[in-house]
Amino acid sequence: MGSMLAVIGPGDAADPRLLTVAHSVGREVAEHGTALVCGGLGGVMEAACRGARERGGLTVGLLPGLDRRAANPYVDVAVPTGLGQGRNLLVVRAADAVIAVGGSWGTLSEVALACRDGKRVVSLSGWQVSDTQGGTVPGVTPAADAGQAVLLALGER
Amino acid sequence: MGSMLAVIGPGDAADPRLLTVAHSVGREVAEHGTALVCGGLGGVMEAACRGARERGGLTVGLLPGLDRRAANPYVDVAVPTGLGQGRNLLVVRAADAVIAVGGSWGTLSEVALACRDGKRVVSLSGWQVSDTQGGTVPGVTPAADAGQAVLLALGER
Amino acid sequence: MGSMLAVIGPGDAADPRLLTVAHSVGREVAEHGTALVCGGLGGVMEAACRGARERGGLTVGLLPGLDRRAANPYVDVAVPTGLGQGRNLLVVRAADAVIAVGGSWGTLSEVALACRDGKRVVSLSGWQVSDTQGGTVPGVTPAADAGQAVLLALGER
Amino acid sequence: MGSMLAVIGPGDAADPRLLTVAHSVGREVAEHGTALVCGGLGGVMEAACRGARERGGLTVGLLPGLDRRAANPYVDVAVPTGLGQGRNLLVVRAADAVIAVGGSWGTLSEVALACRDGKRVVSLSGWQVSDTQGGTVPGVTPAADAGQAVLLALGER
Repeated sequence: MGSMLAVIGPGDAADPRLLTVAHSVGREVAEHGTALVCGGLGGVMEAACRGARERGGLTVGLLPGLDRRAANPYVDVAVPTGLGQGRNLLVVRAADAVIAVGGSWGTLSEVALACRDGKRVVSLSGWQVSDTQGGTVPGVTPAADAGQAVLLALGER
Repeated sequence: MGSMLAVIGPGDAADPRLLTVAHSVGREVAEHGTALVCGGLGGVMEAACRGARERGGLTVGLLPGLDRRAANPYVDVAVPTGLGQGRNLLVVRAADAVIAVGGSWGTLSEVALACRDGKRVVSLSGWQVSDTQGGTVPGVTPAADAGQAVLLALGER
Repeated sequence: MGSMLAVIGPGDAADPRLLTVAHSVGREVAEHGTALVCGGLGGVMEAACRGARERGGLTVGLLPGLDRRAANPYVDVAVPTGLGQGRNLLVVRAADAVIAVGGSWGTLSEVALACRDGKRVVSLSGWQVSDTQGGTVPGVTPAADAGQAVLLALGER
Repeated sequence: MGSMLAVIGPGDAADPRLLTVAHSVGREVAEHGTALVCGGLGGVMEAACRGARERGGLTVGLLPGLDRRAANPYVDVAVPTGLGQGRNLLVVRAADAVIAVGGSWGTLSEVALACRDGKRVVSLSGWQVSDTQGGTVPGVTPAADAGQAVLLALGER
């Protein structure tokens, strides 16, 4: 199989503007012929899956619980893990690169794990991380829009 | 998404007869319109994926390592987990029911975890488990052939 | 730290005879100056921890849930994992060798994972595994009593 | 058993000033009669374990690899997990509260997971997290010194 991009971000608490961005990211991922992996639930995850589906992309959802039916309706392959937030690491490991849309503690855990593993991480409206002195910590690349985010994540920019 | 069946069994040590059986199981799974999940490597896993692919089925491989390229060529969705044998539990949790083809310690760990969770487990030429007195332990249903195994796993027999 | 032995077996469903055996195993483990790791709950796990405690041994319980208070009262170090049966693999990985007292599907999953990893596995009144033809599968060593089980697990017999 | 505090922070890349702080944190944890859990390796983890040991505390190390001998010499209970950075989640789940000393991506993943689960998180010289607009994200409490950090983590301040 080809590459797989993770799209991560807040679930049901995501604000509408983020959902629009996530939807665009999903479409862009699919248009590049790349599969999309996420946490499988609502909010950013659902919007991204919906976008990917509209463009014929394949969507994978790694769920925190044990019930496949918790997946949003745009997930093609639902994998119940029963690991709770332990599935965050699996989302990162499943992906070649990660696009964060918005911020939450769960999202930040995935960003941090991906940076720890040296994977490309691109952020759209995400939380910001600075070191003790307030300096920038290298690892996360900000993007201006969905199209740029996907190109950066694929290493094409 | 619909249901997903796990096909489990020995990897590269599998004997040729088992591979023929696993290939038939993969085809039957796909013909029932069901996705197939497995450990993603060679032997029984590869034969089952090959069979499913031939009949247009979707195949998911949950890999023990971190490198997607370890997946056999018939895996549609490769998920590197980096959990080693910890991925065995994920194969079981991802599936609605489990079909074991042949036996190995890794396979038996998956059979045991699936029985522990009360999932349907069907066995073709698998190892046998008996209690301290040599009596039968309920949990695993033997099947005569691939077709029957899939029907039993789907609860249609 | 020194070595650590896992004592595994059924939880609250364990019959009284098994509890007596598990209690003796716990005492023997402690008398050899070895720490004991288990799944942290009742039945065989609790009896083994109680035995180890009586002889001044250290006991570690890797719990399936998220609440430390689920540990039996003889666990010194309770580690809530939230992984459900995923903690079975951790019990095996934490240990240098494994002693099974009695049988259950959860117990068998640990036996199988330990054998898969090539660890020493000793069984007292455990379930039996045979291959397709009914032949013995190498990997598990039966013991006659608690004292012999611990010596075998430590590789001293 | 009583409560358990996690001390997290960079491994071998930690600067000497952080090690002094971590050492003090370890001593304070032990003086409160609380067990210490960490990732079991060098740097902040080792300094904290050394401090706890000096004051008679119990130290638990949840290791990323499969070899118990990778633990630093001040770990009483070494648990090899073989989960890589997956053990970060286990460190958080094992603890009632978390003290971060310094920052790294691995450390941040643990901070984020702990905040996600609503656990108390105290930071000494840690990385800083702000939202998209640069505002403060509630969840992490800064401490001025080791003594205050432990009191805050124990909810006594």
